[in-house]
Amino acid sequence: MIILHTWTTPNGRKASIMLEETGLSYEVRPVNIGKNEQFSPDFLAISPNNKIPAIIDKEADDGPLTLFESGAILTYLAEKSGRFLAPSGPARYKALEWVYWQVGGQGPMLGQLGFFAKRSDEKAPLAIQRFTDEADRLLRVMERRLAEVPYLAGAEYTIADIAAYPWTVAATTFLKDVLADSLATKPALNRWLQVVGERPAVQRGMAVPNPQGS
Amino acid sequence: MIILHTWTTPNGRKASIMLEETGLSYEVRPVNIGKNEQFSPDFLAISPNNKIPAIIDKEADDGPLTLFESGAILTYLAEKSGRFLAPSGPARYKALEWVYWQVGGQGPMLGQLGFFAKRSDEKAPLAIQRFTDEADRLLRVMERRLAEVPYLAGAEYTIADIAAYPWTVAATTFLKDVLADSLATKPALNRWLQVVGERPAVQRGMAVPNPQGS
Repeated sequence: MIILHTWTTPNGRKASIMLEETGLSYEVRPVNIGKNEQFSPDFLAISPNNKIPAIIDKEADDGPLTLFESGAILTYLAEKSGRFLAPSGPARYKALEWVYWQVGGQGPMLGQLGFFAKRSDEKAPLAIQRFTDEADRLLRVMERRLAEVPYLAGAEYTIADIAAYPWTVAATTFLKDVLADSLATKPALNRWLQVVGERPAVQRGMAVPNPQGS
Repeated sequence: MIILHTWTTPNGRKASIMLEETGLSYEVRPVNIGKNEQFSPDFLAISPNNKIPAIIDKEADDGPLTLFESGAILTYLAEKSGRFLAPSGPARYKALEWVYWQVGGQGPMLGQLGFFAKRSDEKAPLAIQRFTDEADRLLRVMERRLAEVPYLAGAEYTIADIAAYPWTVAATTFLKDVLADSLATKPALNRWLQVVGERPAVQRGMAVPNPQGS
């Protein structure tokens, strides 16, 4: 059994999609970041960076394993299940390349855009411009890639797509008014969003946690 | 032979330190980002995100492998050499957890602080405050971790330390005036900086590229 500490955010959904895709047995523990529950001492012991998602695999090979950081969780679950990440060769490293691109670029830059353009009451035009430009640049990188290959790592659906999907959905929903012009000119990205979004496990993972009772 | 496309930045130095640590044979191709060389069509073909570092391993198992993203390069070189990342078990995932923490948090947040506090002529106080606070928070996370264990992943020096070292050096040099109060109160982090910085391979890697002639 895997315990998933998560909330209704793109990083949290990476983990729940992967758990649904692999079929591994898991239980959800909602951590309501709107109520600052991520700063509780109990959660800090699991996630020293005070962020969701974090997992505890009670049946890991060498005893219970606690793990934070969405990219590490995706890699762990891929290697545990043998799915969505090749064990060796170029397919493996192309997938990891795009997972790191998502974790180090697409996620943080869209996250900062969300803060400065949407969440902050005070406005900093320099920051809004910087992160709008950077988000647009990153979405163009995705578009070029997805015009060449069906999935981010190449021919196969991998943890790179699972990492990028929830943040790309955020770009098209929460950030839609800021990025509308950018999104309208990206047919390959929109095709990918539709194909990935039709996967039943992705749909189930995107609905976790259900704050009313998951 | 591995070709390393890099420049004198913290992300570039992650790759050169790892190449020095593993002893793999490599050649340096400087990409002068001060002259926008990362936007050349030749470099875009290697690194679709227009960022250094990128490598080409001409002797990879299945033919030449091109790889961008510092975290993916560290993982690839660790798995190729069998060094600085355990092949399985908790030690492996603790290392990956801190590599992802560095790539998704410490690197981008210190990078944004550098832009808003140091490089931008126009000043956005809201952004400077946000990224100063976030950098300080992340350095406190490092301090708590390094007060418990000698290296980020635990008992052993791993790719997590290689990822975090050049950016932590940037915090203590380029960003020193912004972060001085934060750094003065972190004995464990300063001990780690000294131990890692004394490694000969780290010293050699931090000197790559030599713009005068490497």
